[in-house]
Amino acid sequence: MPKPKIAITMGDVSGIGPEIIAAAWSEISQLCEPVVLGHQVIIDRARELRHVTEPITAVNCMNDDIINAECCRVDSRSGHGAFQALVLGIEMARRGDIAALVTAPLNKESLHLAGHHYPGHTEILAERCSVTRFSMMLYLAAGENIAGANGLAVNHVTLHTSMREAIEQITVESVFEKSLLIHEFMQSLNVPQPRIGVCSLNPHAGEGGLFGREEIEIIVPAIEKARAAGLTIEGALPADTIMVHAKNGHYDAVVAMFHDQGHIALKLLGMYRAVNITLGLPIIRTSVAHGTAFDKAWQGVADYRSLVAAVKVAVEMSQQRKK
Amino acid sequence: MPKPKIAITMGDVSGIGPEIIAAAWSEISQLCEPVVLGHQVIIDRARELRHVTEPITAVNCMNDDIINAECCRVDSRSGHGAFQALVLGIEMARRGDIAALVTAPLNKESLHLAGHHYPGHTEILAERCSVTRFSMMLYLAAGENIAGANGLAVNHVTLHTSMREAIEQITVESVFEKSLLIHEFMQSLNVPQPRIGVCSLNPHAGEGGLFGREEIEIIVPAIEKARAAGLTIEGALPADTIMVHAKNGHYDAVVAMFHDQGHIALKLLGMYRAVNITLGLPIIRTSVAHGTAFDKAWQGVADYRSLVAAVKVAVEMSQQRKK
Repeated sequence: MPKPKIAITMGDVSGIGPEIIAAAWSEISQLCEPVVLGHQVIIDRARELRHVTEPITAVNCMNDDIINAECCRVDSRSGHGAFQALVLGIEMARRGDIAALVTAPLNKESLHLAGHHYPGHTEILAERCSVTRFSMMLYLAAGENIAGANGLAVNHVTLHTSMREAIEQITVESVFEKSLLIHEFMQSLNVPQPRIGVCSLNPHAGEGGLFGREEIEIIVPAIEKARAAGLTIEGALPADTIMVHAKNGHYDAVVAMFHDQGHIALKLLGMYRAVNITLGLPIIRTSVAHGTAFDKAWQGVADYRSLVAAVKVAVEMSQQRKK
Repeated sequence: MPKPKIAITMGDVSGIGPEIIAAAWSEISQLCEPVVLGHQVIIDRARELRHVTEPITAVNCMNDDIINAECCRVDSRSGHGAFQALVLGIEMARRGDIAALVTAPLNKESLHLAGHHYPGHTEILAERCSVTRFSMMLYLAAGENIAGANGLAVNHVTLHTSMREAIEQITVESVFEKSLLIHEFMQSLNVPQPRIGVCSLNPHAGEGGLFGREEIEIIVPAIEKARAAGLTIEGALPADTIMVHAKNGHYDAVVAMFHDQGHIALKLLGMYRAVNITLGLPIIRTSVAHGTAFDKAWQGVADYRSLVAAVKVAVEMSQQRKK
């Protein structure tokens, strides 16, 4: 099978995006035919920083003033550049010029300063792809800390919202939909019948109604609906139990009720291997699971393993889709 | 220093309590002078099961019908027996007959069936010790997965309650008090100025107020109050970040806002090494961090490491208190 063509955005160039691309270059070139979206001057700086001798060609899609953007801090030029690279990547993926899009991190504050008022990548992707049913998922491939052969995927019913609001957003429909999305994702990794565990909202799965009734009234009915639709799914189970079982390979996928349930587990299990994947899009999009890391940027030390993992999953998903 | 005398309750004898005591016997006898609270017939059964040749003498404080309690399921006789052993243990500790109390797990349903309507050990301890300011903490000693020399303590501002109710229980007073309790606990382990990290309630520490205002209005003011009281404390920080930093030794103690934040992290980091400690009591009480495990009980396979860890911490705390 020929190597798929995959676009990689440089993200916010004041952060670690450019240098992790440069540092990961030899590894990702073996996995795919990478196309860097950003600016040639910046990627050459990053190559020099990381002592990469191979040439890397970047598609110049950022304004030329990006070369004066300040390192390691909020800068509207970097925010705008990240937006430009993302928009081009989405267009290329929608046109079929590339098999998948992989994004380096952006900084929300810089993005806002540049006049782009979105919480992050995901919402821009959803808007430009005209989808309303989408979800941000975290994925750890099999390996260190993950015993199951299919890795571990964690989807979140609620995410970037207050806990008060999150509780209100947990409905039979939202739990069902997130379960279905993660089921379809695991199928896109060639796992026909993934084993899904669903977390409870409340401690001890609500202790039979004593610690809240969302399990009884919402989560269990949603699980029953998903089971009726053919999913292999169980819950609601206490999140602390489910994450240990998932680590030990008892589940391929977990549906978390809110941000911290999924993120605490995945960051402890594989901070530098975790991949962020947007589900529900017509295109394949994966991302590193970390931020711009201004405190470590342009020092030549940033860890690039999450980027390699993001490219690997994108390649796998695109090859499954082609079949 | 002579070995401290420590009472160990057998807990719910339908579960794994008796056999983990028997299996751990040689290890815990080296750490302290253990006194088993339960029933002689049961501990002898457990010794046989785990092939322990040394004799173990139990204080008979459970009714004799405990010997007919059913294995591996809810049984009111086991619930009552667990209560009897706990009550005796508390009395012995309050009288100063023992240096500390270590408890094996009880089953809440069996406890209720026996007519004792408490959520668990902690509330019985608080009532019998006449305290209202208390807290259940988890502790992992230094070692596997915990880089810091002082181990990692996690205290919870809210615990066995619904998430809706938990949010209401987070106040400047409760966050301050739980911070102070964990500070005092680490001092009782001879860490004079522990480094404490405080979790946010909302994702991304509330993203500057965009994802909730509890950080701004409650948690940060509580932290400032604690700092003014002399604590080395910082936050509110995103829980997923804080747990990774804690694992890497950046904090000695973490204040979590709710059950899952602390429990997901500690169970992933050391399921079988974690110890449960009640703070704020006039006596020293530690416990295993797991339940009765009816699915594994009386098969001779139950893991006893958490009990050994609980005894170790109890010994350490009692020796510090004596100084």
